[in-house]
Amino acid sequence: MSSFEHTWTVRFSDTDPFGIAHYPRIVDTVHETADIFMQEIDFPFWEISIEHGFGLPLVKMDFEFERPMEAGDDIVISVVPSLGTRSLRFDYVARKDGEVAFTGYETRVCASKDDVSSRDIPDDLRAAIEPYTES
Amino acid sequence: MSSFEHTWTVRFSDTDPFGIAHYPRIVDTVHETADIFMQEIDFPFWEISIEHGFGLPLVKMDFEFERPMEAGDDIVISVVPSLGTRSLRFDYVARKDGEVAFTGYETRVCASKDDVSSRDIPDDLRAAIEPYTES
Amino acid sequence: MSSFEHTWTVRFSDTDPFGIAHYPRIVDTVHETADIFMQEIDFPFWEISIEHGFGLPLVKMDFEFERPMEAGDDIVISVVPSLGTRSLRFDYVARKDGEVAFTGYETRVCASKDDVSSRDIPDDLRAAIEPYTES
Amino acid sequence: MSSFEHTWTVRFSDTDPFGIAHYPRIVDTVHETADIFMQEIDFPFWEISIEHGFGLPLVKMDFEFERPMEAGDDIVISVVPSLGTRSLRFDYVARKDGEVAFTGYETRVCASKDDVSSRDIPDDLRAAIEPYTES
Repeated sequence: MSSFEHTWTVRFSDTDPFGIAHYPRIVDTVHETADIFMQEIDFPFWEISIEHGFGLPLVKMDFEFERPMEAGDDIVISVVPSLGTRSLRFDYVARKDGEVAFTGYETRVCASKDDVSSRDIPDDLRAAIEPYTES
Repeated sequence: MSSFEHTWTVRFSDTDPFGIAHYPRIVDTVHETADIFMQEIDFPFWEISIEHGFGLPLVKMDFEFERPMEAGDDIVISVVPSLGTRSLRFDYVARKDGEVAFTGYETRVCASKDDVSSRDIPDDLRAAIEPYTES
Repeated sequence: MSSFEHTWTVRFSDTDPFGIAHYPRIVDTVHETADIFMQEIDFPFWEISIEHGFGLPLVKMDFEFERPMEAGDDIVISVVPSLGTRSLRFDYVARKDGEVAFTGYETRVCASKDDVSSRDIPDDLRAAIEPYTES
Repeated sequence: MSSFEHTWTVRFSDTDPFGIAHYPRIVDTVHETADIFMQEIDFPFWEISIEHGFGLPLVKMDFEFERPMEAGDDIVISVVPSLGTRSLRFDYVARKDGEVAFTGYETRVCASKDDVSSRDIPDDLRAAIEPYTES
């Protein structure tokens, strides 16, 4: 089993008058983390439509924030994907010094580029993701 | 009962290569909508800490996206708050031409400014929110 | 002569640990202001490529920040366009309570959609912008 | 002489309907690059106010965009600082495959935390920056 982690250093420009990360900036980071994961498995979001004829629009996001994050904090974000027939879920756990800062998941559906109808996840994408799923 | 709505016009700079709104930009808008609501009831986020000694950090967000939004779309976002003893929930429904584009909710806890411990929602904030809750 | 102004209310989520607007959030607002202006003159950025066959990519931005902006401030941003043969410039003045908060300008070139080469600004766009220019 | 570079990978969520980076996202990256530079020299933006009693508000930004950037592009951004008595300038050159994508600079003034008046750049910050300046 492979695993995927991305470390986010909270920046001054991410922080609010209390010195903690604005939550829309946390969502930016979650999105960037998914983007980096898809690049790692060779299905970057910016290529799948052009080269493979489908998209993966987001249909659901659900997050819980447990601990405030401050500028300079290194937040280690792990991603564990799960495969449905026509959908894909990413589970996130973000830790600061080993303690959970936030958790959550996103669900994406596989949509045909031509008519935006849902379709099965292609076999090659399924094969690229499988090593990262929990057995 | 009072009600609260905010209309968001999706901008070119919110949109992706498919011409639809990037979802972090949708989250920005949700956050802005809560901000405008708090200003409307005279408890703007930027004053409650200084003038009232508490904060309302986000602990949970949960959203479902049903319909893509394109640049130029006017999205009408309604907010319905609910009051807990120490927490506050905002339920959102966003519509485009009367049809649901996305729904979801956020939960915030009331935290003392001094020690970040949770505390009861102050009576004056409770009174300001009550007219907007569903009976 | 017509004139164009947009009022931006600085939001909590725009502000930094000093309580003043992060400057990338100011740039977001400038961009949104240009977007609203183009919509007002019936050449929204999201339509010009599809309906008119050209784009207006940014080639230059130059801003000076004179006064900090805080959450809750209403910032009145005026836009005055000027027309070149193949380019377009927007001059901005942003005021808070009548005093200048920031000024600056952006230059965009008119680019053919097909080959990204520069081209003359079309006559109909020129006619739509002219009433807003300074005589 | 030391030099400083940061590589930005353009993400899907940075891109517009033409597939190129929205310019407010480029400004986010410039700001992040300055933030990483200040961390490298041990004067991170998030500490200077608390530990050193001053801030470095932006007073000027001036950028030229020469080449569109697409999702997946690795943009190498160099920063060269210059020191004034009470101000600091960062010059940026961003390259994609060795060719200039954008250039520009930002000017910041040194402001006392207590009364926001300008003051001389402290000697220890000056010493930390000097190795990165052009001789």
